[in-house]
Amino acid sequence: MSLLLAAAFAVLFIDPPTDAPEQAKAVLTAQAAAWNKGDLDGFMAGYWDSDELTFYSSGTVTKGKKNISERYAKRYKAEGKEMGKLAFTDLDVQVLNADTALVRGRWKLELSKEKPDGLFTLILKKTAAGWKIMHDHTSASEVVKVVEKK
Amino acid sequence: MSLLLAAAFAVLFIDPPTDAPEQAKAVLTAQAAAWNKGDLDGFMAGYWDSDELTFYSSGTVTKGKKNISERYAKRYKAEGKEMGKLAFTDLDVQVLNADTALVRGRWKLELSKEKPDGLFTLILKKTAAGWKIMHDHTSASEVVKVVEKK
Repeated sequence: MSLLLAAAFAVLFIDPPTDAPEQAKAVLTAQAAAWNKGDLDGFMAGYWDSDELTFYSSGTVTKGKKNISERYAKRYKAEGKEMGKLAFTDLDVQVLNADTALVRGRWKLELSKEKPDGLFTLILKKTAAGWKIMHDHTSASEVVKVVEKK
Repeated sequence: MSLLLAAAFAVLFIDPPTDAPEQAKAVLTAQAAAWNKGDLDGFMAGYWDSDELTFYSSGTVTKGKKNISERYAKRYKAEGKEMGKLAFTDLDVQVLNADTALVRGRWKLELSKEKPDGLFTLILKKTAAGWKIMHDHTSASEVVKVVEKK
């Protein structure tokens, strides 16, 4: 009886089977939902709060959550800017070890005058605060630079 | 005596301590060396020969070694094109598990008329044929598109 009881307790208190791919995807779903409510802090909650966090975009490396948040704020929350509607599609999640996952996918932003899109490669890490992005490489399909022809 | 002999054999036949970061870096060193000799096949030897191999650049996903090789050939080996001189710098190697490594860095190409550069994020995998790139996300600092102003 005591053995049976022990077994029952073990079943009750054991960690549920981790579903890393679903948990990693949920981070992105929450990010897009926050973005689409204009909630930049909510969006930023998907990132690891560490100086080791890196954001690679175009030719620029941005390190740490605060700097990355400021970069987003400057581009999408400043005077005359808009956050628009963000969607993540074509998600491919690959678990690399018990607490690291690779997530590849496509992003698309609908702004009032343009619809930029591109690809991303994320490394997510399981932290005490849940799965968080520790590295983000985001690139745009096209960075348009207007050059005046003479 | 037989125990000592067994111990000696064990020392002789044991795998040397793996130095994953150095081995991952060596893949990139070999790639740049091959590129700078105009040897695209040698450069491509750094990639995993699998349909699961992915190359993300601009907004385009290219899958498999053959398709990626063709993409490079079209851009750098075709009529009127040149391979130029390639350098990888600012390498950051992080081992994610016994057979997976994350490599972040910067690329720079010297062509006769321009010097494009940018960032890359690689996932390397230890295969039977050694460490190979299984995912490459490469972005340019700037993709210039000339838009005529009217």
